[in-house]
Amino acid sequence: MSSGEFDLIARFFAPLAAPAGLGLGDDAAVFTPPEGCQLVVTSDCMVAGVHFLPDDPPESIGAKILAVNLSDLAAMGAAPLGYTLALALPADLGDDWLAAFAAGLGRKQETGQIALFGGDTVSAPGPLSLTVTAFGSVAIGAALRRAGAAAGDLICVSGCLGDAALGLHLLRHGGEGAGNADAASLIGRYRDPSPRNELGQRLCGMAHACADISDGLFADLGHICEGSGLGAEVGLPALPRSDAFRRCVQAMALREHDFIAAGDDYELLFTLPPSRQGVLRDLARQTGVPITVIGRMTAEKGIRAMDADGRPLAALPAGWTHR
Amino acid sequence: MSSGEFDLIARFFAPLAAPAGLGLGDDAAVFTPPEGCQLVVTSDCMVAGVHFLPDDPPESIGAKILAVNLSDLAAMGAAPLGYTLALALPADLGDDWLAAFAAGLGRKQETGQIALFGGDTVSAPGPLSLTVTAFGSVAIGAALRRAGAAAGDLICVSGCLGDAALGLHLLRHGGEGAGNADAASLIGRYRDPSPRNELGQRLCGMAHACADISDGLFADLGHICEGSGLGAEVGLPALPRSDAFRRCVQAMALREHDFIAAGDDYELLFTLPPSRQGVLRDLARQTGVPITVIGRMTAEKGIRAMDADGRPLAALPAGWTHR
Repeated sequence: MSSGEFDLIARFFAPLAAPAGLGLGDDAAVFTPPEGCQLVVTSDCMVAGVHFLPDDPPESIGAKILAVNLSDLAAMGAAPLGYTLALALPADLGDDWLAAFAAGLGRKQETGQIALFGGDTVSAPGPLSLTVTAFGSVAIGAALRRAGAAAGDLICVSGCLGDAALGLHLLRHGGEGAGNADAASLIGRYRDPSPRNELGQRLCGMAHACADISDGLFADLGHICEGSGLGAEVGLPALPRSDAFRRCVQAMALREHDFIAAGDDYELLFTLPPSRQGVLRDLARQTGVPITVIGRMTAEKGIRAMDADGRPLAALPAGWTHR
Repeated sequence: MSSGEFDLIARFFAPLAAPAGLGLGDDAAVFTPPEGCQLVVTSDCMVAGVHFLPDDPPESIGAKILAVNLSDLAAMGAAPLGYTLALALPADLGDDWLAAFAAGLGRKQETGQIALFGGDTVSAPGPLSLTVTAFGSVAIGAALRRAGAAAGDLICVSGCLGDAALGLHLLRHGGEGAGNADAASLIGRYRDPSPRNELGQRLCGMAHACADISDGLFADLGHICEGSGLGAEVGLPALPRSDAFRRCVQAMALREHDFIAAGDDYELLFTLPPSRQGVLRDLARQTGVPITVIGRMTAEKGIRAMDADGRPLAALPAGWTHR
């Protein structure tokens, strides 16, 4: 740790540390896990130009790296505890950038109920790269898994799909024809995802399988199918779209298919037995997050997308299953 | 997570996962912390061209990123549990590179008694960057800290100093004049540090303060001094040098001062009351790691380096305190 790193930590990151001041001055941080719990740990790396745009506002970059990790905790049903942050910083990022980045982290910490436990900051000759490792706790044996779905399970998603992918499209190609408020909303969904931590925790003991949608609906559903040794049928008309998404797609004459399953949604995708369908409305009310049933798990392997008439498409559109 | 990432994980990293197969197929890993313990967490980031040479053998890069994290756990007195790995990979690193890198991780896992819990692999347009976040456990309240030294404490170091810095010099500038075996030994100390985890754990309840030497003897001693509100006197002739170090410095007409406190040693630096000096021999015997008393903590602040006659140098050589 160089003296420059100590300065950075003191100025920008120490205020984000957990109340106990957990070890930013030591070689490592110390924390006491809740009794009788298991720990859940996840690590996500984002690189400028790959996972965010180099000129994205630093506030939203800070918020997003934390959000994607919180979303992994949500997918496991874990209550957030803390995170570490590793920053490989190019020389041209100044104090203003760091201050705004730390502000974004701080904002997401507060909504996510998670605190900074420590980290590492290094100079790098390449693009900015960020790694957050987040940990949470879950009652022993209660963590949600991808493997665990049963044939006949309802497939559900939280929130709306495709907003973030469409927001990225607007950033890259401009938004001529889209309303300003819609464009801002979609871009906000790309830059500043809302991880579903409360919903994830409430799904423990209720959902059979769960994943977050980061790679795209069908890619992540594929992981649940593979893990559970099953297939799935998904009704395309049932996929939840926001009003901004519908209006923007129409106004710009885009194809929904290019965005709806393109990922970066950070919504939860989960399965539960049809007998529990009644709880979905309660869950949505308790968490303030809409939940939509989009299909069913099937004993027959493979994923089939059904059109408005309930007929399977011959094949999933290219790009839906692998990115 | 792209399908390519799944392939990578399955081929190279799944074999390194903890016996329970901890969640490499889920959004996060799950583990059960030991009862009645605190957890220690540390994160270290290394970038090609900054923390290792781009053409260092991938086996040693894998070993080193894990070693520097294990060394942070050692400095806290923690027993290693597991780690996550985030890899930002340039496109030109092929399967051979990854296989050798994973082999280095695997070797260090075995000596370090630590297992892979999960991680993230992304493509990056810049240099290879690696982040490891490591977890360990320690009895409640027993973690070693930097703050905690008392005036009069003996200052001790494990192993020898300067080998790694001299090894890096040989890699960068050639080793004309140095013996082949000495050069190989010094380069090995740069590429493949030996974290002192057993010693660290035995120091719990015994040492007043502890840090690992990553930035350099005086920089890391400075952290202990600042944390403890004290100063220190260090006898330069007492600093432990390996035979290879002594011979190589002499044969190449180099200055010891340029290497002895230059960092990357991953030895432990700790203080303990003089009344416990007697245990040092036992500790060295039990762990197989030499321990040397190099000075004393003082109420007077600042670090004073004493020459062979016990006289303080007017000032620490440039580069010793800050890098």
